Amino acid sequence: MAEKNTPVRPPTHPDGADGRVRAVIDAVLPIVDGGRFPVKRVAGEALRVQAHCFADGHDMLRVMLRWRSEDDAHGAELPMKPLGNDVWQAEFTPPAIGRYRYTVAAWVDAFESWRHDMARRVELDDIRIASQIGALEIAAAAERANGVERKTLARWGMELHSAAVADAADATVLKALALDEALAALAARYPDRRLAAQYPLELPLVADRDRARFSSWYELFPRSTATETGRHGSFKDVAARLPAIAAMGFDVLYFPPIHPIGRVQRKGKNNALVAKADDVGSPWAIGAAEGGHKSILPELGTAEDFRHLIAQAAGHGLEIALDIAFQCAPDHPYVKAHPSWFRWRPDGSVQYAENPPKKYQDIYPFNFESEDWPALWAELKSVFDHWIAEGVKIFRVDNPHTKAFPFWEWAIGEIKRQHPEVIFLAEAFTRPKVMHRLAKLGFTQSYTYFTWRNDKQELTEYFTELSAGPGSEYFRPNVWPNTPDILHERLQGGEPAVFMARLVLAATLAANYGIYGPAFELREHLPREPGSEEYLHSEKYQLRAWNHDDPGSLAPFIARVNGIRRDNPALHADRGLRFLAIDNDQLLAYAKRSDDGVNVVVTVVNLDPHNVQSGWLALDPASIDCEAGHPFQMHDLLSNQRFVWQGDRHFVRLDPHSVPAHIFRVRRRVRDEREFDYFQ
Amino acid sequence: MAEKNTPVRPPTHPDGADGRVRAVIDAVLPIVDGGRFPVKRVAGEALRVQAHCFADGHDMLRVMLRWRSEDDAHGAELPMKPLGNDVWQAEFTPPAIGRYRYTVAAWVDAFESWRHDMARRVELDDIRIASQIGALEIAAAAERANGVERKTLARWGMELHSAAVADAADATVLKALALDEALAALAARYPDRRLAAQYPLELPLVADRDRARFSSWYELFPRSTATETGRHGSFKDVAARLPAIAAMGFDVLYFPPIHPIGRVQRKGKNNALVAKADDVGSPWAIGAAEGGHKSILPELGTAEDFRHLIAQAAGHGLEIALDIAFQCAPDHPYVKAHPSWFRWRPDGSVQYAENPPKKYQDIYPFNFESEDWPALWAELKSVFDHWIAEGVKIFRVDNPHTKAFPFWEWAIGEIKRQHPEVIFLAEAFTRPKVMHRLAKLGFTQSYTYFTWRNDKQELTEYFTELSAGPGSEYFRPNVWPNTPDILHERLQGGEPAVFMARLVLAATLAANYGIYGPAFELREHLPREPGSEEYLHSEKYQLRAWNHDDPGSLAPFIARVNGIRRDNPALHADRGLRFLAIDNDQLLAYAKRSDDGVNVVVTVVNLDPHNVQSGWLALDPASIDCEAGHPFQMHDLLSNQRFVWQGDRHFVRLDPHSVPAHIFRVRRRVRDEREFDYFQ
Repeated sequence: MAEKNTPVRPPTHPDGADGRVRAVIDAVLPIVDGGRFPVKRVAGEALRVQAHCFADGHDMLRVMLRWRSEDDAHGAELPMKPLGNDVWQAEFTPPAIGRYRYTVAAWVDAFESWRHDMARRVELDDIRIASQIGALEIAAAAERANGVERKTLARWGMELHSAAVADAADATVLKALALDEALAALAARYPDRRLAAQYPLELPLVADRDRARFSSWYELFPRSTATETGRHGSFKDVAARLPAIAAMGFDVLYFPPIHPIGRVQRKGKNNALVAKADDVGSPWAIGAAEGGHKSILPELGTAEDFRHLIAQAAGHGLEIALDIAFQCAPDHPYVKAHPSWFRWRPDGSVQYAENPPKKYQDIYPFNFESEDWPALWAELKSVFDHWIAEGVKIFRVDNPHTKAFPFWEWAIGEIKRQHPEVIFLAEAFTRPKVMHRLAKLGFTQSYTYFTWRNDKQELTEYFTELSAGPGSEYFRPNVWPNTPDILHERLQGGEPAVFMARLVLAATLAANYGIYGPAFELREHLPREPGSEEYLHSEKYQLRAWNHDDPGSLAPFIARVNGIRRDNPALHADRGLRFLAIDNDQLLAYAKRSDDGVNVVVTVVNLDPHNVQSGWLALDPASIDCEAGHPFQMHDLLSNQRFVWQGDRHFVRLDPHSVPAHIFRVRRRVRDEREFDYFQ
Repeated sequence: MAEKNTPVRPPTHPDGADGRVRAVIDAVLPIVDGGRFPVKRVAGEALRVQAHCFADGHDMLRVMLRWRSEDDAHGAELPMKPLGNDVWQAEFTPPAIGRYRYTVAAWVDAFESWRHDMARRVELDDIRIASQIGALEIAAAAERANGVERKTLARWGMELHSAAVADAADATVLKALALDEALAALAARYPDRRLAAQYPLELPLVADRDRARFSSWYELFPRSTATETGRHGSFKDVAARLPAIAAMGFDVLYFPPIHPIGRVQRKGKNNALVAKADDVGSPWAIGAAEGGHKSILPELGTAEDFRHLIAQAAGHGLEIALDIAFQCAPDHPYVKAHPSWFRWRPDGSVQYAENPPKKYQDIYPFNFESEDWPALWAELKSVFDHWIAEGVKIFRVDNPHTKAFPFWEWAIGEIKRQHPEVIFLAEAFTRPKVMHRLAKLGFTQSYTYFTWRNDKQELTEYFTELSAGPGSEYFRPNVWPNTPDILHERLQGGEPAVFMARLVLAATLAANYGIYGPAFELREHLPREPGSEEYLHSEKYQLRAWNHDDPGSLAPFIARVNGIRRDNPALHADRGLRFLAIDNDQLLAYAKRSDDGVNVVVTVVNLDPHNVQSGWLALDPASIDCEAGHPFQMHDLLSNQRFVWQGDRHFVRLDPHSVPAHIFRVRRRVRDEREFDYFQ
């Protein structure tokens, strides 16, 4: 039978394993780019892992999920359960923030296969043979066990063998002995794993802290917090605002850059190319004689003042987030100290930064093709290190997509290795694949297109993608109805209903959201010129004073919405979002459900700021764990009204001249008569 | 500025590259399981590759597709073009059968970036500066060039510099010189690639021969080809059938196993557990005293006869395909020679093979957990080697999912390394992920669920998945309306319209299809018992004689359909399938389009064998490259009738009592009056 033509190469298992390894692990999910990037969760949040596993033939498989902290070589393992269609599932919960790894092992289990076969046997002769085979498997399991368990298994194996070969063997008795549940469970604890298949990758997971998944941001310009018009605000003025901001229910207070502002090419009010003597310039034109990215603009206060403010904010449940913008005013100390970090032109100038269509004549970009890149990277990373040492743990990063991607991956990786609690928000309003890359390579949260998604169809599509698309494993949206750079056309009418609707949408569609205030709650809405998204008299270029006592302020409404967010776990994650059919294109309706299913919030928003809109909402009680055929209560947490609904279709009516939204908490009927309320 | 707490680790590019490598290659597609398995095409068929590439900021990128034969360390490269949304695309055509690799390189191109910037400049001062920068880029390109080109570039650079610094510089003249198209094209041939990013994987591609993608199979039992009832057919009898099979338009003639058949536990007629003395047994109970998998059942003929038959078949354009079933009758020579290849039970028996619910009492399975697995694998592979040496290049593999997966990956890989022309068809009617794994690990074609997909909705979903789902990169369906194991319920009525409709569906939905004949063309339709999918008097267990002269034979119809397949390139691939809306659930309509768009075939099938069905078909002329607002001709290649259609909706009516299908070739209007026909 010898072959003539084929040079003999010894057979090898394609995965380098023993050739008898028959189990196949075809896929482990979730996975980002073949394991190149981590999946993201928060500490205490379960990661559900699926694996596609099978073997040839009809033998039984056992599949184990293995996971470990990156600091721990060993870790733990737990059995995966078959869901059908060769999909196996298990979940583990990273107990603390940090980086983890997970993988899967699977093997053809001779003992389970035998048990499965045994259970099908009916003929006495078959049962006798099968019992003898089982006795061998049990004896082998005994060999793998110790102490009492070893003895128990060995005895069982011997008994089964003896019974099988006895002349008086009885099918029922034999089968009962062979299939003993308790003994089987014991044997299953000592499987033969010599021929286990191992998934070749250990997939990475980053577990962040809670605030990475659920946060409410408030942005303000510290210099515009003075109570007297025209005075430059300081950290002390910000401190005076803390109670009001905390009362609105925010937990992150974020400042544009707080560094010294360049004087060369300084911008004037409304982005004027030439500044007047008293113009304060753009905070993003960083660096002057007083210092650069590790310094504080003297008018704001000292490093000591800043540390004090951080402590005061913490007392109000607020964390300070800083904007880190890696760029320099022409008079930034880096420019003289490290000319090699900039790209000089033949005329001795540096081309100013651009983020089309925006032009930043007051800013030099860094040159990431500098031959001195190791020093540049190290210095930029040290900016984060500096502020972390000062007590800042949240950074909003300005235009990260105009800095080299490998720098971010390295810097964020290094920083989080030492400070896994740090949160980075990527302010990249750019093309989708670029935004996703930044999220993959380490940014904790990401700005989104929410600002430009206003209609029912586009909101539905976008938030379906954000909450359930493949990117949801690593891209955490942080949505903003406005920013200092974006006053969307829809807000330019100034109608309270638009501001309220956009706030409710942001706060209930996304677990992370923010507003740029006080412009938002005071409904600042005039553009610099028609067709522009820039604010008139933008704080980016001048001091502003705000009338917080304006009776039209939305602060109380915002406080109510943030309170609802805090009290309802369904709103603490992006997963669990489901849009609901409603027969009116001006009404948007959706349900969010907590992981455990207990908390369900149904939001309905009237997108039309001018007219009352009504419609029939489709909501199947079973889909929100309510009993079909029985009433359930919808408690509008905004108005504190309660509605009793029954059946599948429900009438909703929203008047934009009062409140353009319902945020219903579903209260299920409780049969226990000791309850004060029949709905909880 | 030095940091206190952070131990200094020198910055490193996460991909191990120079830190100045700014281009990002985020994804290269198609990719199967992160590059673990190859994509499949045929030689001469283009592979379209996409890459998601970008860099920070707004510089211009250049992206190259690199590909090579696995035997060639170098290969070729070609530029990829941007499609928008950071997707770049190029295609290459593997010129010959074999294995290939492809990957992508990308870099930020300083010369292109400068040109792009230059084109936007309007101020003379800006143009002067930009020209000087350009002169430096051009001089650098000259350094990378040789000979005349070097001189040409160097001269251009010097001229541009001189013009830029001249007192009398003129914006228009300077810009024209800077943006010279021909010189730019020359400079672009010498890019600075020192900081190119390289995708870390070289992705595999298998290029098969044409028949892997487009084939028409005819299965028959050689032993049932005798012209006299009761005589055992032989290869000589098969030879007599070759002209008729070729006339039906098939190109693969496939035999169930041709080896000696076991006598121990031989099955009788209709799968009887006890055979009579003259029963011939199942060809899948392989091996007896006369030999095993490398031997031929003496009644069929000699090895010489077989080789002669292969040559005769080739003369008719037919390739012989063999069924390789790795299993043994109890009296197969392997059982005595290699007892370690089987799993022996305590009573000295081997558990017979099963593929639930089927039981094969006449068959021993191999034990792939044998400690002697290297010898087992080598021997099984040598079975293929043996038949390849005899001239067989196509194998249908019986139940590959009941043999260890790593064996197949190794064996097919080794065989195709030496014989890349060999085609393996996986006969795995099993769970989806298992079937896909077999396709990934090397099987060229795969059996499908087509036999059980009969209604409009299920056919639409299944063939959309097969032709356009992610599996379409590696899973090539081969669809069968019947097999010796499957007489589907729908065929059991015997109506010609059902057989014709199923044939048309198989032949036009899939590029690879087959029938089990003569049972198919002679409309054999009685099941062994009601509710069974087994044929009554199945050829699997007995000799049959067939009346090829039956006037009801579908042979002429099959010949017509296969002729249409041969003549229409749209039917030679699975890609290019699109289902068309038609307002009748008994009518299924779809268009297939050749890669170059020239050939378009529209098929409409009446799924109701009893009633005339009609409906309005939606077909936008633009979607088939016909002029909107002008008539186009639909040439029914089955009836040779021609219909002139215009507009978007078209009336179709099919009578199952004549022919239950249209197979239209779209003929577009030709304006050239020299054409005999205005439609071609």
